[in-house]
Amino acid sequence: MQRRRFIHHSGLAGVLAAGMAPAVVHAQTTLRWRMASSFPKSLDTIFGGAEVFAKKVSDMTGGRFQISVHAAGELMPAFGVVDGVQSATVEMAHTAPYYFFGKDETFAIGAAIPFGMNSRQLTAWMYRGNGMKLMREFYAKYNIVSFPGGNTGAQMGGWYRKEIKSLADMKGLKIRIGGFAGRVVERMGGVAQNIAGGEVYQSLEKGTIDAAEWIGPYDDQKLGLYKVAPFYYYPGWWEGSAELDFYVNTQAYAALTPEYKAIVEAAASFVHVDMQANYDAKNPAALKTLISNGV
Amino acid sequence: MQRRRFIHHSGLAGVLAAGMAPAVVHAQTTLRWRMASSFPKSLDTIFGGAEVFAKKVSDMTGGRFQISVHAAGELMPAFGVVDGVQSATVEMAHTAPYYFFGKDETFAIGAAIPFGMNSRQLTAWMYRGNGMKLMREFYAKYNIVSFPGGNTGAQMGGWYRKEIKSLADMKGLKIRIGGFAGRVVERMGGVAQNIAGGEVYQSLEKGTIDAAEWIGPYDDQKLGLYKVAPFYYYPGWWEGSAELDFYVNTQAYAALTPEYKAIVEAAASFVHVDMQANYDAKNPAALKTLISNGV
Repeated sequence: MQRRRFIHHSGLAGVLAAGMAPAVVHAQTTLRWRMASSFPKSLDTIFGGAEVFAKKVSDMTGGRFQISVHAAGELMPAFGVVDGVQSATVEMAHTAPYYFFGKDETFAIGAAIPFGMNSRQLTAWMYRGNGMKLMREFYAKYNIVSFPGGNTGAQMGGWYRKEIKSLADMKGLKIRIGGFAGRVVERMGGVAQNIAGGEVYQSLEKGTIDAAEWIGPYDDQKLGLYKVAPFYYYPGWWEGSAELDFYVNTQAYAALTPEYKAIVEAAASFVHVDMQANYDAKNPAALKTLISNGV
Repeated sequence: MQRRRFIHHSGLAGVLAAGMAPAVVHAQTTLRWRMASSFPKSLDTIFGGAEVFAKKVSDMTGGRFQISVHAAGELMPAFGVVDGVQSATVEMAHTAPYYFFGKDETFAIGAAIPFGMNSRQLTAWMYRGNGMKLMREFYAKYNIVSFPGGNTGAQMGGWYRKEIKSLADMKGLKIRIGGFAGRVVERMGGVAQNIAGGEVYQSLEKGTIDAAEWIGPYDDQKLGLYKVAPFYYYPGWWEGSAELDFYVNTQAYAALTPEYKAIVEAAASFVHVDMQANYDAKNPAALKTLISNGV
């Protein structure tokens, strides 16, 4: 009753001036989303990008827009996130588009294609060269609105148990390789395999595969692949750069206020700068360490 | 009276649920800042970056945080913006830090130094290599909080009225050149001049100067310098990349809510990605046109 009397006497403006209203407004407008990542938590560079995104959105909204980030396998498999966003099981995902080139090869264009664009070129195409518009037209079929959300830069050519001296050594070579590049490897006589990051080490150690490309020095080092496959080649011509994307469910996005739409876009931009910077800062030191380990 | 009675009957929660409160809260918290750019409006790539920043901040805050952007000379001269921010004449500025190397050479490190870092390297250092922290420690003396806000990428070596065939041709050469690089040119026997963009064409035409470096193909083309100085060299080894920064007055920044601080940071990130993308998208076509003009 005390509160009602106060309102009665001072009017709405007085209540707001007294600083009471904001807390009520905030509680009223809290929005919670779930984001499915295609990556494990151990991949701090890329999984970390999704966490940075969620933190920035929270910071910019005073905690009123909360996004929980879920590692691959937590809500759905790594390669199930397009279906997850399409069916609105989650409001958004963070993934490498080329994982889904089996659905449609167009997905690969949004991440990396062999002898494709480098990181700055791909970003220029996305932001200022009609790329984002064209990709969004394509993604609309999957109920997705896309935002560039990081890039690894040029990747390495991967780890090989035996030295590769000529094209003949590619014949029958079983290699874990991501995206569209597998098709090229198969034309060269190799056997492309799609294996999740967490299983690459064991597969190489057991000899189930002969080679594996993962990402670059910093991420590769953590998997310890140099212990079981000491030949490290570069560059990964199939990934002159590899873009990660945030995929947002079309209806969930449409339901956002204009402010929140702009905040989602800017948070993605922050991650897009920050992830490439992170790789560029960490890869050189990691490469030195690998070489000092006899790679 | 109608309104007071409504409040009396429904209580504050009811008022808020009825959607009345937000408009009042918004009106109450409108914030207006002024940003002084060191560039003319005609330089759409860089001046446009400041406009994009202001638009993104407005979009993210539903118009409650408005920043008016002012071209060089409108509120203060191009090279007066550090003083302007330091003295709180304006809340913020958008500039190329190396313009102020005369105050302290450290400024140049935040933009470009001869044979310095390329665009990705500089961004990596800023975002993930301690660079932003170190630069902010330095800028604190000037009452400035800095945010990377764009990069031009590697610049061209500029326009020359006569062909440069040997080091001897640099003796006595009067060249418009930005930042710290002027010192290097002077050691080579040249005469470095600091001339604002709008006066470069006339100075070259009259022969007041013998050469001028500005930015890169897209921006240079608009100044029409090829008509008066047809020899175009590359690269500008003094600007392997050139970062633009947003400078915010320390007290103005401290007075922002945590949400607005995060929004300022993310808007700067958006511009940082977008400007480099813009240059990368526009420079190749402009270079082709210049060459077709006999450059």
